[in-house]
Amino acid sequence: MDRATATVSVDSFPGPKAEQRVEYHHRFAAPSTYVYEFVWDTLADAAGPFVTDVDSNVLLDFTSHVGAAPLGYNNPKILDRMAEFDLVDPLKIAGQDFYLSAGDPTEPAYPGPAELMDLLTETTERYGLDTVFLSNSGAEAVENAMKVCYDASHGKYGVTFEGAFHGRTLGALSLNRSKEVYRRRFPEIHGIHEVPYCDDRACTRATCSCGFFPNAETPSQLRRMLDPESGYVDPADVAYLILEPVQGEGGYRFPSDAFVEELAALREEHGFLVIADEIQSGMGRTGEFWAVDDYPLDPDVVCAAKGLRVGATVASSETFPTETSRLSSTWGAGDIADAMQGALTIEAIHDHDLLANATAMGDLFLELLGERELPNVLDARGKGLMLAVEFDSKQRRDDVVDAAVQRGLLTLGCGTRTLRVLPPLDVTEREITMGVDLLAAAIEDAA
Amino acid sequence: MDRATATVSVDSFPGPKAEQRVEYHHRFAAPSTYVYEFVWDTLADAAGPFVTDVDSNVLLDFTSHVGAAPLGYNNPKILDRMAEFDLVDPLKIAGQDFYLSAGDPTEPAYPGPAELMDLLTETTERYGLDTVFLSNSGAEAVENAMKVCYDASHGKYGVTFEGAFHGRTLGALSLNRSKEVYRRRFPEIHGIHEVPYCDDRACTRATCSCGFFPNAETPSQLRRMLDPESGYVDPADVAYLILEPVQGEGGYRFPSDAFVEELAALREEHGFLVIADEIQSGMGRTGEFWAVDDYPLDPDVVCAAKGLRVGATVASSETFPTETSRLSSTWGAGDIADAMQGALTIEAIHDHDLLANATAMGDLFLELLGERELPNVLDARGKGLMLAVEFDSKQRRDDVVDAAVQRGLLTLGCGTRTLRVLPPLDVTEREITMGVDLLAAAIEDAA
Amino acid sequence: MDRATATVSVDSFPGPKAEQRVEYHHRFAAPSTYVYEFVWDTLADAAGPFVTDVDSNVLLDFTSHVGAAPLGYNNPKILDRMAEFDLVDPLKIAGQDFYLSAGDPTEPAYPGPAELMDLLTETTERYGLDTVFLSNSGAEAVENAMKVCYDASHGKYGVTFEGAFHGRTLGALSLNRSKEVYRRRFPEIHGIHEVPYCDDRACTRATCSCGFFPNAETPSQLRRMLDPESGYVDPADVAYLILEPVQGEGGYRFPSDAFVEELAALREEHGFLVIADEIQSGMGRTGEFWAVDDYPLDPDVVCAAKGLRVGATVASSETFPTETSRLSSTWGAGDIADAMQGALTIEAIHDHDLLANATAMGDLFLELLGERELPNVLDARGKGLMLAVEFDSKQRRDDVVDAAVQRGLLTLGCGTRTLRVLPPLDVTEREITMGVDLLAAAIEDAA
Amino acid sequence: MDRATATVSVDSFPGPKAEQRVEYHHRFAAPSTYVYEFVWDTLADAAGPFVTDVDSNVLLDFTSHVGAAPLGYNNPKILDRMAEFDLVDPLKIAGQDFYLSAGDPTEPAYPGPAELMDLLTETTERYGLDTVFLSNSGAEAVENAMKVCYDASHGKYGVTFEGAFHGRTLGALSLNRSKEVYRRRFPEIHGIHEVPYCDDRACTRATCSCGFFPNAETPSQLRRMLDPESGYVDPADVAYLILEPVQGEGGYRFPSDAFVEELAALREEHGFLVIADEIQSGMGRTGEFWAVDDYPLDPDVVCAAKGLRVGATVASSETFPTETSRLSSTWGAGDIADAMQGALTIEAIHDHDLLANATAMGDLFLELLGERELPNVLDARGKGLMLAVEFDSKQRRDDVVDAAVQRGLLTLGCGTRTLRVLPPLDVTEREITMGVDLLAAAIEDAA
Repeated sequence: MDRATATVSVDSFPGPKAEQRVEYHHRFAAPSTYVYEFVWDTLADAAGPFVTDVDSNVLLDFTSHVGAAPLGYNNPKILDRMAEFDLVDPLKIAGQDFYLSAGDPTEPAYPGPAELMDLLTETTERYGLDTVFLSNSGAEAVENAMKVCYDASHGKYGVTFEGAFHGRTLGALSLNRSKEVYRRRFPEIHGIHEVPYCDDRACTRATCSCGFFPNAETPSQLRRMLDPESGYVDPADVAYLILEPVQGEGGYRFPSDAFVEELAALREEHGFLVIADEIQSGMGRTGEFWAVDDYPLDPDVVCAAKGLRVGATVASSETFPTETSRLSSTWGAGDIADAMQGALTIEAIHDHDLLANATAMGDLFLELLGERELPNVLDARGKGLMLAVEFDSKQRRDDVVDAAVQRGLLTLGCGTRTLRVLPPLDVTEREITMGVDLLAAAIEDAA
Repeated sequence: MDRATATVSVDSFPGPKAEQRVEYHHRFAAPSTYVYEFVWDTLADAAGPFVTDVDSNVLLDFTSHVGAAPLGYNNPKILDRMAEFDLVDPLKIAGQDFYLSAGDPTEPAYPGPAELMDLLTETTERYGLDTVFLSNSGAEAVENAMKVCYDASHGKYGVTFEGAFHGRTLGALSLNRSKEVYRRRFPEIHGIHEVPYCDDRACTRATCSCGFFPNAETPSQLRRMLDPESGYVDPADVAYLILEPVQGEGGYRFPSDAFVEELAALREEHGFLVIADEIQSGMGRTGEFWAVDDYPLDPDVVCAAKGLRVGATVASSETFPTETSRLSSTWGAGDIADAMQGALTIEAIHDHDLLANATAMGDLFLELLGERELPNVLDARGKGLMLAVEFDSKQRRDDVVDAAVQRGLLTLGCGTRTLRVLPPLDVTEREITMGVDLLAAAIEDAA
Repeated sequence: MDRATATVSVDSFPGPKAEQRVEYHHRFAAPSTYVYEFVWDTLADAAGPFVTDVDSNVLLDFTSHVGAAPLGYNNPKILDRMAEFDLVDPLKIAGQDFYLSAGDPTEPAYPGPAELMDLLTETTERYGLDTVFLSNSGAEAVENAMKVCYDASHGKYGVTFEGAFHGRTLGALSLNRSKEVYRRRFPEIHGIHEVPYCDDRACTRATCSCGFFPNAETPSQLRRMLDPESGYVDPADVAYLILEPVQGEGGYRFPSDAFVEELAALREEHGFLVIADEIQSGMGRTGEFWAVDDYPLDPDVVCAAKGLRVGATVASSETFPTETSRLSSTWGAGDIADAMQGALTIEAIHDHDLLANATAMGDLFLELLGERELPNVLDARGKGLMLAVEFDSKQRRDDVVDAAVQRGLLTLGCGTRTLRVLPPLDVTEREITMGVDLLAAAIEDAA
Repeated sequence: MDRATATVSVDSFPGPKAEQRVEYHHRFAAPSTYVYEFVWDTLADAAGPFVTDVDSNVLLDFTSHVGAAPLGYNNPKILDRMAEFDLVDPLKIAGQDFYLSAGDPTEPAYPGPAELMDLLTETTERYGLDTVFLSNSGAEAVENAMKVCYDASHGKYGVTFEGAFHGRTLGALSLNRSKEVYRRRFPEIHGIHEVPYCDDRACTRATCSCGFFPNAETPSQLRRMLDPESGYVDPADVAYLILEPVQGEGGYRFPSDAFVEELAALREEHGFLVIADEIQSGMGRTGEFWAVDDYPLDPDVVCAAKGLRVGATVASSETFPTETSRLSSTWGAGDIADAMQGALTIEAIHDHDLLANATAMGDLFLELLGERELPNVLDARGKGLMLAVEFDSKQRRDDVVDAAVQRGLLTLGCGTRTLRVLPPLDVTEREITMGVDLLAAAIEDAA
């Protein structure tokens, strides 16, 4: 498949083989979040956003495989480098008990966990975050960030935000303030307080519509909470404030300057630790390496996963506990192949100037979409290739996602009535145009 | 390297390249559980338990790479089958959102997550556990088992055991009753009660030395806790009892029949759910596929990881929540290569009769070790290839581990003064003999 | 002392005997909230608000003995009725194990716990609250309200408000969102969420200054929290919403109609239980028997104490658990003398039309105070005899309280810079005038 | 009524007036622990254990009014002193905000809260406990003990015992390990661990029947829990160990020397704080002023209530928080009349040598009872006047309690099949003989 000329073609979706596969899969699989019956044929042609399913439909995946393939499928920027790699057993290693090297440590044949950590800390150097704890998932990256902060601060409170989603394990889940279904009937850890999260990227203290700033004069809710005289949480007892720099699951919400400046001011005054959960927003997605890079707020801990292919908790060596055995994970430094793909992804972002491409292509997407007169669209927004279209109802959004799939475009929902679009970081003008055309048509279909 | 003739050879351990690698690694890595400076050279020769480090030392790894390589290194029983597999991007997939197949679903070129689940549920068929939730680690397997049980039972209490270790995320960690360092300063979920865990596999109610049975006449502590008249926990409010069929981290403790029969009797009376955490003990390690297979106790949920290469929570479809979105994980069906290695491992166990081999070789190990007059050994015990030697002190145990490494034998500690030995499931008589010789020599060294 | 002619006279405050008493008291007493060195001489003359201290100073107590003496000192409306009572031993009875009657049950010589409950349920009849659980304090009244709601609803979440104060025991304390010092280092129960509490009794959705209503169009924060589609708390899982109809400790905050109507609308939609904590605001203080009587919100549980002389949790028999042993308290039906004083207080409120007096005298207080040009006063507000003056700073407020004491007027602080005034319910014009004069002078002193 | 000649006389129990009163009471009262329809006529004759109910039955109350009347009814040792007291309003005072004195502080007419605290700290002087926090109930005494320890230790764990009962508020309730009905569906604070409580006052490590000592050689369960190397609770993180020196609700269990010595040894090694909950066992009940006085274990905090008439938390000034506002309670220094009765009770114990009487009369009770051949009695035990008879079943115990009431003797149940007897501290030989006769007859009735 030549990516430069590839086109979308859908015979029937889902086709008979997909249905067969899905039926077989669900004989054994517990109910989960399966979105539609897209069955990737891993043996078939795929290139960047173009992917072939088991019924030979060619689809344009503008979800980047739900964020797990930040450069799309079989991208030569990654795959060509992996040619050096021969599969070994085990791939899943005891990487926080033992070490490995692909041959001579000074010149390993391919990057392993150590190289991945080296590359990661380069991206967080500006914050002084020089140390990494690798784990197996985004949820584990968050759990370890929490543990690091509880240990470093001796605090008992965590501050989270309305709409937050940080994972599914019981610690991370206790931080969630998005749909209640994620937490229903599950026990939670104690001491987590929430405040509203900005839902208008252009708002000021005076025009705030989430309640974080009651009005132009009165202090923000977070400032009231932490007020040393009248507040109900002792700032010295705050283990961390955890923030998605852009809320993902909560609906691709981009906070305003006023909002972030207030967080930064309170951090300055009170000295609590800030965790940036960059699992969705990081790894170049917004046109910055980390979404928070564009903010006046320096994080103490950064959590990464998805595009990184392993979970990572990055902080300074002073913040991490020094005693061994406080943190660990059997497979903590990941799968050899995953660590390699993660390292190659970071290198590809640097080598191919993909941050600039993300910014340019994201702008193009919004511009092209904005030129159309599309029905039922309340808002189209984004930064880099973290893009969202908000509709007039949940049903409409679901209808558009379905209509798009029928036309060969894969997208996802988030929030209650928002559709998210996250093309590969090296997406081209041609692909953006193609995606906008398909999406616009789907919006018309669903009108 | 020919496994049949391979020998251990240690020049210096750790050698200069290992030290170099370790130094580089720790420039970035947070403190964790690193045991000794073993650096696997992934490009060098390795076969079953024999593995070459970056300084060309050949070692006998009787830890099976900390359990992550149940058949040792580059075992052709697995690796030959993987030849069919060409690396793709992404390897780490959104397997609870999208599906995949390696070509035609009816005849995939290699097993994927669906095939892995199919194989897994065959092993739990006797318990009626027909449904799987795949996740990224043992900790996540446990967290999801907890969630499944809270949801199914509406209960608020969990019962765990002294010495238990179930993982590091805050939910799983709340179940731990091994060393306090794992939990110090971290918040825990509420409602977890502990009772003693049997520490004498031959005990009876009358000879019990852990306190679970106070004496021959009085009820067990668990029975007292759940007594409908005088107990302090309402059995109807028990979400689960979670059990390692053999305690791993807690010191390779094999419970007695009396102990397990009491658990089974109480489950029968009160109807609570039982989670078997088989992360260390499962996948053939004890000579049964699951350690619990040899017990008169039918689990409602089985947790697996380590040798399985992905995390898995197995239960019946009736126990799992039916609503979508209650459980999920971005990479929940794992990495394609890991799922494949997991499936191939299960097949290898079946195809090569490795359960019988584990039993025979484990017996041989204990027999050969028992023939020696070894100083400072309090107990040698095991089932299948889950083997342990208990010493007179923690210091002694640590000294033996160190002395063994110097002689080229990799082992691990557990409990406070126990050394664990877990050879590959297809270990041979020759290798067992070699291992016992090295271990015996190390014990003498440390005397 | 003739109340009609009594005057305030302060020689020195605190005088030498007070200092002596306080010194002796603090040889044994743990640090607590002691406000100033007022030492009531229980043998000396006292009448309504007039009270003599051990140094023969005559003071005007406009705190009603911190709310514990709703009719002031030795009020004949109560004391004359108590003449029938001869002291017995024990006074503190096992009133939820045994019963008592002062002679013939059909005509007891004085009211006991049963009569007190009878009188109480008359005041809550309009809400259908026909059943009472008596306890020993306001904190216990709240703890039992919580227990009743957890039991009736099977819910796990509680909703509380910024600025709330509900008591000091660990359950009630978990609901507090006033000063952090009350909770610091103490464990709390889980599942409590807070939202802002109205701080402008005249506000609308559009002018809200606390953030509860972000603006005129968007839903309130509580509505967002409970939204069945996007909210983070399942309304079906809410055990209770607990509300001070007027916030006491939080600063005598009177909520707006818009605020209370939204609570009522959400209760109507979602059916959760509402607890009205009337410990400060009830028993006629606001000119209604319960402060909530003037609201469009019907409580499911009412908590009373202070003026009632015992703790009381009032709800319908359907809401209370029916199983015995779920609720109890050794001295649960109180001290015989306290129950009698509580009953006589309710009767006095009815017999002497004290609700109307509270309204008239409260209005007079605000009118007289409003006529003055007083420096540094930001707001004067109140309903009935629950009155507050807000100053420009905490220091100013403290200075006014001190200056007032020096002039013979006892008042208290609340919130951060508010002074509260709570005269006896039968306060007269003469006394109100006297109190305003003293307070105005104190405000000038502190300017 | 002359106590020296008074006799028991029961016409019908419950009589018609009692039934009438109970019916009226339950029109309003929530279900609680009401044991039988005993209705004290507070106007009728009563003397020590003899009390007249509303139907003119004269009963022998060997429950000391459920512990609330440690000297029985209208005991002149207390009542004669109370003659000095004229009722005032309020009785229930704001005793942690304001102070009081009954006239001249150097010579008050009757003892107030300060005198009560003075008397209390004399009894705890041997432990260096010189400071008191007064509250409204036993539950509040425990809640404040917990708060004091959390504050002083910065610890997060509490250790409690099987069978423990410490109160009903949610903090105290979290410590309970007696019947589950007390905790069902109520949230609890986290971090509470339980170990078995001795159930054989004569046991040794070798004969232990509760499991606390597994056998003669292995460490106790508490020692294992706190072991610095292998234990699951960091001793430095233990806020307190809370102990009933004799378990009350749990069944009048008197711990063995071996048990208490182990607690003392662990306290010595690890330095955690020990709370003695003396609510049932203190105030002379066991023949010591505090039950713990006879133990080799020095408490850091003592909780008292019941016989004391107010709640009290006694500790050293170093253990209490020094910051004001950390602890408080509106009615915290109690009701004037209650504080007076409490003080007079302590004085009566000293003045009339009631500790010696308790020991002698308790021994007599057990001796007289032991002389009989009584059916279905498994054990009779006690210390001082804290006496218990254990039967072969719960039903039997309940039958004996009922039969005793019919004969005019009031007793109570505890544990599952134990009957408790707690006569007034100044009980006489004549009364003990009378009580044993009635009890023996009741036991025969229920055979």
